[in-house]
Amino acid sequence: MKKVLVIGSNGLVGGAVADALAESHEVVRASRSEDERVDISDPASVRELFERVGPLDAVVCCAGVVPFKPIEELTWEDYRAGFENKVLGQISLVTEGLSQVRDGGSFTFITGILAREPIATGAAASAVNGALESFVMAAATELPRGVRINAVSPSVLSEADGYHPFFPGYPHVPAAEVARAYVRSVDGVETGKTFRV
Amino acid sequence: MKKVLVIGSNGLVGGAVADALAESHEVVRASRSEDERVDISDPASVRELFERVGPLDAVVCCAGVVPFKPIEELTWEDYRAGFENKVLGQISLVTEGLSQVRDGGSFTFITGILAREPIATGAAASAVNGALESFVMAAATELPRGVRINAVSPSVLSEADGYHPFFPGYPHVPAAEVARAYVRSVDGVETGKTFRV
Repeated sequence: MKKVLVIGSNGLVGGAVADALAESHEVVRASRSEDERVDISDPASVRELFERVGPLDAVVCCAGVVPFKPIEELTWEDYRAGFENKVLGQISLVTEGLSQVRDGGSFTFITGILAREPIATGAAASAVNGALESFVMAAATELPRGVRINAVSPSVLSEADGYHPFFPGYPHVPAAEVARAYVRSVDGVETGKTFRV
Repeated sequence: MKKVLVIGSNGLVGGAVADALAESHEVVRASRSEDERVDISDPASVRELFERVGPLDAVVCCAGVVPFKPIEELTWEDYRAGFENKVLGQISLVTEGLSQVRDGGSFTFITGILAREPIATGAAASAVNGALESFVMAAATELPRGVRINAVSPSVLSEADGYHPFFPGYPHVPAAEVARAYVRSVDGVETGKTFRV
């Protein structure tokens, strides 16, 4: 049994991931609004979370907010907000939390299909997701003590009906299927991978 | 003949790009230190540059700074600095400059091989370059008035001897070869591409 921190446990993906991992592990649920409180856009908040709940065997993140707007309406501040939340927020789990992850532990980030495939209003999301996939590829080669890192990249969620019109013809993926990719990352041997679901 | 803005014209790549484009175009050279002054990490500085030199047919960027450190030494502030300079700096050319680019014009960004291939100390650079490649892929589908956008992704420069030990066995690419990819982006028909050189 591992001790696993699930960040974003109040969301569609995070809830499914926490439930799937809880079948065989001790799960600590964290989010902005409940359980262990954390704001991933604030490195001090992330550091405090690790001090409260560490040491850990795995850190998984299902949180990250990015603005969606037509490219002519996206401002420099919109892009910056997306990077500070979904990119720097997840990278801060490594910068602030690596020392609380045990030998052979792992990080699992959330990215998304927009890293490789475009939709209207998705330019900021594409940039953010591309950053995360390249980060994971590179970070895996340098993490010490056998610590692994992967990303999970879902298409639009089956359960998120409201988003379906923005992803015309894109595959719909159930949250439970996304959760399986997180289990593969936490309990498997792979590192530096982006699991596409 | 097109009017082309070359940002980073004082660098190895920027100098070669400006010279190559000047064979058939009017080139405006801009950098932090000479010619038209600009600091791409400051959107107000970028906006002022466009107000001084616009309207334009093409905007090409050969500038962007990212910290290189072992992953256990890279801080949250290091990552943020890399995103604010090389990523948000280049994206600000679109957010602040699109209205000064004529119909059928183009943007060309600089990214790099670390988006796809890792080196020690390169985790921040990989994240930054991955963001740019995904941004270009997505932005190309939404830019109005036939405006195109591409990225040029070089391996380590032949002329940059000091960096060669950090890229063991990686191809060396002459700055003049990188410049050819910029010419292809400015004078060709492609959009949403990352040209690997």
